[in-house]
Formats: sequence, C-alpha cells, structure tokens
Amino acid sequence: MRMVDVILAKRAGKEHSKEEIDFIIDGIMQGSIPDYQLSSWLMAVCWRGLTDKETAWLTDGMCKSGDVLDLSSVADLIGDKHSTGGVGDKTTLVFVPLLAAAGIPMAKLSGRGLGHTGGTIDKLEAIPGFQTSLGKDEFIKQVKDVSMAIGGQTAELAPADGKIYALRDVTGTVESIPLIAASIMSKKLAAGANLIILDVKAGKGAFMDTVEKAKELATTMVAVGKTLGRPVTAVVTDMEQPLGNAVGHTVEVIEAIETLKGKGPKDLQELCLSLGAMALVSAGKEKDEKSARAKLQKLIDDGVALEYFKKLVTAQGGDAKVVDDYSIMPTAKHEFELKAESNGGGSKWVEHLDGRQIAEGLKLMGAGRVRKGDPIDLSVGVVLKAKVGTEVKSGDSLATVYAVSEEQFNSVKEKLLSAYRFSSKQVPESPLVKASVS
Amino acid sequence: MRMVDVILAKRAGKEHSKEEIDFIIDGIMQGSIPDYQLSSWLMAVCWRGLTDKETAWLTDGMCKSGDVLDLSSVADLIGDKHSTGGVGDKTTLVFVPLLAAAGIPMAKLSGRGLGHTGGTIDKLEAIPGFQTSLGKDEFIKQVKDVSMAIGGQTAELAPADGKIYALRDVTGTVESIPLIAASIMSKKLAAGANLIILDVKAGKGAFMDTVEKAKELATTMVAVGKTLGRPVTAVVTDMEQPLGNAVGHTVEVIEAIETLKGKGPKDLQELCLSLGAMALVSAGKEKDEKSARAKLQKLIDDGVALEYFKKLVTAQGGDAKVVDDYSIMPTAKHEFELKAESNGGGSKWVEHLDGRQIAEGLKLMGAGRVRKGDPIDLSVGVVLKAKVGTEVKSGDSLATVYAVSEEQFNSVKEKLLSAYRFSSKQVPESPLVKASVS
Repeated sequence: MRMVDVILAKRAGKEHSKEEIDFIIDGIMQGSIPDYQLSSWLMAVCWRGLTDKETAWLTDGMCKSGDVLDLSSVADLIGDKHSTGGVGDKTTLVFVPLLAAAGIPMAKLSGRGLGHTGGTIDKLEAIPGFQTSLGKDEFIKQVKDVSMAIGGQTAELAPADGKIYALRDVTGTVESIPLIAASIMSKKLAAGANLIILDVKAGKGAFMDTVEKAKELATTMVAVGKTLGRPVTAVVTDMEQPLGNAVGHTVEVIEAIETLKGKGPKDLQELCLSLGAMALVSAGKEKDEKSARAKLQKLIDDGVALEYFKKLVTAQGGDAKVVDDYSIMPTAKHEFELKAESNGGGSKWVEHLDGRQIAEGLKLMGAGRVRKGDPIDLSVGVVLKAKVGTEVKSGDSLATVYAVSEEQFNSVKEKLLSAYRFSSKQVPESPLVKASVS
Repeated sequence: MRMVDVILAKRAGKEHSKEEIDFIIDGIMQGSIPDYQLSSWLMAVCWRGLTDKETAWLTDGMCKSGDVLDLSSVADLIGDKHSTGGVGDKTTLVFVPLLAAAGIPMAKLSGRGLGHTGGTIDKLEAIPGFQTSLGKDEFIKQVKDVSMAIGGQTAELAPADGKIYALRDVTGTVESIPLIAASIMSKKLAAGANLIILDVKAGKGAFMDTVEKAKELATTMVAVGKTLGRPVTAVVTDMEQPLGNAVGHTVEVIEAIETLKGKGPKDLQELCLSLGAMALVSAGKEKDEKSARAKLQKLIDDGVALEYFKKLVTAQGGDAKVVDDYSIMPTAKHEFELKAESNGGGSKWVEHLDGRQIAEGLKLMGAGRVRKGDPIDLSVGVVLKAKVGTEVKSGDSLATVYAVSEEQFNSVKEKLLSAYRFSSKQVPESPLVKASVS
C-alpha cells in the first residue's frame, strides 16, 4: 500500500477500507508516513469527509495506538462524561460526584485550559492540596475505593490522536466533524469507561458555532460508539452565553459547590440533571428521565451529592473544608461591579452575552493560557449578574469582577462590557438543552 | 502573516491576495514554510481552486524564484512552444525549424521522458553528436546566430515549481488545473519567450483525459499569459491515439524529418501547420490563418524548413547528414509485423487505439523511464500502420515493431495488440484539433 494512493482515494471521495485506515495509524506511529502526506490526507478528509464506518475505524485505531485502561475489575458499568468545552463550564465538578452518588462509578480524565476555554484540571487545583496527576493504577484504585476519580490526561492515551492533532493545529485541518469525533472518542474509549455521556456545546463561545454542526458532531460520536460497541449518549447544549454565572477558576469551584448544595444557577443545575437523567436511564438504573431526575434531585437535597464531592476532594489529597470555607482557595483581593452604561433612563434587556469576550477579558487578567504550560492566575474571576433575558436599568451591576487591582479591572472593563448587547424589547430566555442524541 | 491562516483562507474558498501568494513562494524558497503546511495548502487548492488572478500571481512568483532568461537582445519577438505531452508527439522537431524559417526566432526548452510519454531531448539525442545541455549564454547566442535552439531544462528555471511539483507528486495533488497551469507557464515565462504557443493534449494518452478539462487548462494558461502581459495561444488537440505513426526515439526523429520533407503523416503535418499559422497570425506576420498556412506549406515544399532543421542540428553539434541517412541513428536490428488476429474473414475498422498501451509496450522494451535518470534504449520503436478509422483484414499488419530480438517482440506483442479495439462497422476519423483559445 502506498500513502499517495490512499490520499488519492480520499481526494476522489472514495470510502477507505479498514486496512487503509490501519495503514495510516501504523504509519503515523512508526513514522513511516511523513507529515506532508498526512496533512494532505487530513485536508482531503476536511474536503470529502469520512463515513461513520471510516470514523469508527479511525477512532479505534487511534484508541489502540497507546494504553487502553482496563476498568473491568472496578464494575460492569463505568461512566465518563465529556464536554466539547465552553466558557464557564464547570459541569464535571457537579456531575461526577452526583452520578457516583447515584451508583454509577465515574472515571473521568480531564484537560487543562487552552485558548478561550478553561480546563477542569486547572479549576480543581484551586482547592488546596488537590492532586490531578494520578498514575494509571492510582486512578483505577481510586475509582474502586470511592467510586470516582478526576485525573489529568496522560500522554500514553491515544498517542496517535496527539500526533494527528498537533499537525491539524498548524495545517488548517482542525475543523472537521469526523476528525473531531475520532479525536474525542479515541481518548474516551482509551480511558476505559463504557457509559459515555457527551455534552456538545453549540454557539459563539464553543468549538461548534451552530446547533446544526453540534448535532452533526453528536450524531457522529454516537454512531462511532454504536459501531464500536460502547454506548454513547449525547446532548447538544447552548453556549451562546457562558454556562452558569461564574467564569474563572476559584469562582467556578464555588459555583459548582453551591450547585451541589442545591443553590446553583438554574442553567447549570438543569444541565447536570438532564445529563445525569439520560445516563441513569441509559444505564438501566431508572425507567424514565422523570424518575431519574427526581432521584438526582433528592441526592442533592439530602446532601449526599455534596458528601461525594468531599470524598472526591479528600481522596485526591485536597482539603474538604473547602465546601464550608471558600476563602481557603486563591481569591483576588479586589471586587468591582461592572455597571451597565446609561441608556437614557429606560429599561433594556440583555439580548446577547458573548462568552468569548468574557473569556478574553479573563485571559487578559491572567486566567487563560496562550501556550501549553503557561502559568495562570486561579484567583481572578467574573460572576455574571445579568444574562440573556435579564432586564437591566442604567447603573445596574452586570457582573462582579474579582481582580488583583483596580488598574487591572479598568484595563478589561471595556472588553467585558463589549460582551453585552442589549435590546429595548423584552428578550426571552433561550433553552439550554437544544437536542439529545442516543 | 501565518501560513496556517493562508491555508484556512483557501480552505474556506477565499481568494488569496498577491501578498499571500508571494508569502508562500518566499516561504518555499527560504524553507520557512514546512512541507506539511505546503501540502495541506496544495490539497485545499485542489479542493477550492484558484482564480485566474491567483494563478497568474503564483505563476509569476514561481517564474521569478530563479533565473529568468532575457532574450530581448535577440529579437522583439521570440517564440516558444509547449505540449502537455502525449504519445508520439514529435511536433517540436518539426515546429521549431519551420517557425524559424518563417521568421520567428524560436527559443525552446524541452524535457526528458518520464512515465508513458517520451521527451524531445531524448529523441534529439538519437542524432549523433547532438548536444542538448546548453548553458544560458550558449543558448541565447545560438538563438541569435541561427534563429533557434532546443535545450534541456536547467534546474535554475522556476526552482519553486520544482519544489512544489516534487511535493505534489507524493501528496496526491498533481491533478489541479491551476497548479498545472502555473507549473507550465512559470517555466515558459522564465525561458524568456514572448510568443508562446501551447498544445494541450486531450484523451486517454494525455495528462488531461477529456477535451473539456484540456480546454479549461488551455483557457487558464491563456488568461495567465494575458494577466502577465505575455501573449499566449493555445490549441486543444486529440490524444485519443498517438500523434503520427512513429512511437519511440529514432523512429520519431525519422518521422519528423519526413514531415519537414512534406512526406509526414497527415495528422502531424496538420498540427504543425495549425499551430504555426496561429503563431504567425498572433505575431502579426500574416493577416489570416489561410495565408499563414500557405506560407508554411511553401517553406516545406521548397525545402527551406528542412534546411533550417539541418542548421539546428549542426549548431548543436549533431551530424546533419542524418536527414539523408537515417541509419546513422541507433536502430534496432530486428523488424517485426504486428498482425491483426483473425475475425472470421470479414473486414473490421480500428475504433480505438490506446497510446498508453503502445507506450507501455515500448517501456517494456526499454524505451521508457520509471525513474529520473534511468538509461533508455533509443533504437526500439513502433510505427503504426493502422490508426482509428483504418480498415483492417485479418492478417494485415497493424504496425511495424523495431526490437532488439524476436524474444523481445514476442514479450510485448500482447500488450501492443491490446491497444487496438475494433468495430465491425466503419469508423470515421476523428479531427485532430478540438479547440483553439487565444
């Protein structure tokens, strides 16, 4: 087999055989396919697409290119949850203890923040002592012991994906539904869980900018899971504005804990209940979503979910006192109100709230990375008070900003304000869950 | 400017600016753009295409990436002719002396054969003593002295094209009208002529397999010439079957000389007169094609064109006696007739004659190259007796084969026969010139 023929086949819109896909993966891992051929093939894939079968083979090949965690000794059913990333997305921090409390062991590998979205691993490090670098055996042992673990992704999982992604990043081939699906799913499958819940974000603050594209990605990943015999459930959720109110690190951990206490923002709570209910039904633990939601709500109301969160923190070396005393986390000294500018005295409604602008403001404050490995400031943050549909009068606070100095606040004020667009007419709230695929 | 943004722009179907195209050429020449980015861009170009403007900028950039011959000291108008290559194409050998005789100095750079098509430079080397490695100054001096020269392409012309082509060859990005157009035109422009005549072959034996694609390539190259202020005339000609009757090296030189003597095959003669007439009209030397053809015919009839051929041979160190004694060229010892197989006694007509099969047969006989630099046998050849439309009875000779042994002939007999397809009904001849663009 010659790689140039494989490229020509894809260029002509033909479907690859499993042998061709395996040939590519082997060639990447053995270094026998040069980058210039791989990148040409990647662009041909962006052009012609991959069928669900090809995507499944690619996913499988990438998954098996490195270590595959064997969690079969832990339980028959192990859950994992993945979000394609969005601004203010702290769902994992709520979801993992909530599902573990509901009887589904959760083995979750998370990433660090890069670009405009924050990373779960970074957020957890706001909790004093919390360790995210778990070895493979340590990770598995913890899932056995306390029914859940959240670890940082290690290089050994799906290394072919890492190689392909590095090349996609510099060759304009990141945006491709099948390539994104294979990248996400190969890591999920290598992480060993067999009940995978995907949260595909749609909107300006997300990787997929339209609901349509997000649905396509969700459908592709569900199809890949089906082909490879690993059940996958996916929801498409709104990322036209940040999820919840808090954007930052410490502030997001606080919001997650508040949600576990039953006092979180409505949209975040709704997302956790929706995803969780789907998971319980899919796992055969509850007969329908209504009863599943009731069960999860009770776990929150009774404080069981919060107890599981404390167990998780303790198991990973963190200080569980954090649930009662947020001040033990890095907190910016100064607090400022971002005020709505005058609009002649009348009322106005928030029509649009651009998460990317908020995230960029935070990046300017030191809470985001430009390059892998950059240090970040966990203490700064924004807590939104007005979201889409909120009525605002001039002088009202749109958000509280936690900054290291007044100077810093002033330097990002305009950026943060530019995230808001107002309407003189009342604006309805937008539903969070746009679609579900299973 | 970042190459990844340039790739993304093309991927999105946007038109590049001149600055972007120049950035690519500079990056290739300075080595600052890695091959994996270039190949991804090339595939995006195959996908989205290039506008005529972009193609012209790319051509110009590639042309100026190396030496550009300055022929302005020779004459105001210097002709050059290019064929996209086909089986049996010895047009240059007739065309260059014919046009020089008609008062248009010809500066022609040619290539060697690779794949299934022969190269003019290889053919000329069948003439004892003929030198094709001319230095730049030598080449220009010869055009001044005898109004014509045929030299081998040197690496200094359009080196960016060489680099791009080497990558296209292994990344499945050869087939692209704008990239092919830029590749051909950049070398033509760098070679310094300002009256460029292009012969774009269409059909199974050619690079462009349909007349439609060949027309598109011709139109693109004419547009590039126009944009860059260098007049280009193009014809699309049939390559469904070999041009003329001779396929090989010595046999093709013989056929070219016969054509200059007025005794060549009709299609080859027709092509030389058509292309030549277009060139004379385009150069303003003749008012219409009819008078131009008459002039060229007279130059053949009076032996002037043949005298120019002798001048060319002599100027390049070859033995001009060749025009009277073909035996001074390498000639295979054995001559065999390829006979039509029995079809039950009735008549049949040649419906199709696949040049590629003939060329592959010759390659098996040692007359073709697999890799650059491979030695080839100039002595073997095929002279077709039956072409499309010819009536054939069983036992009739379809072609004379010049081989080094009977064993060799037997080993390619089936291959050569497979080039022929017959019909039981009369088949019309197909017109050679399919379209002209200027």
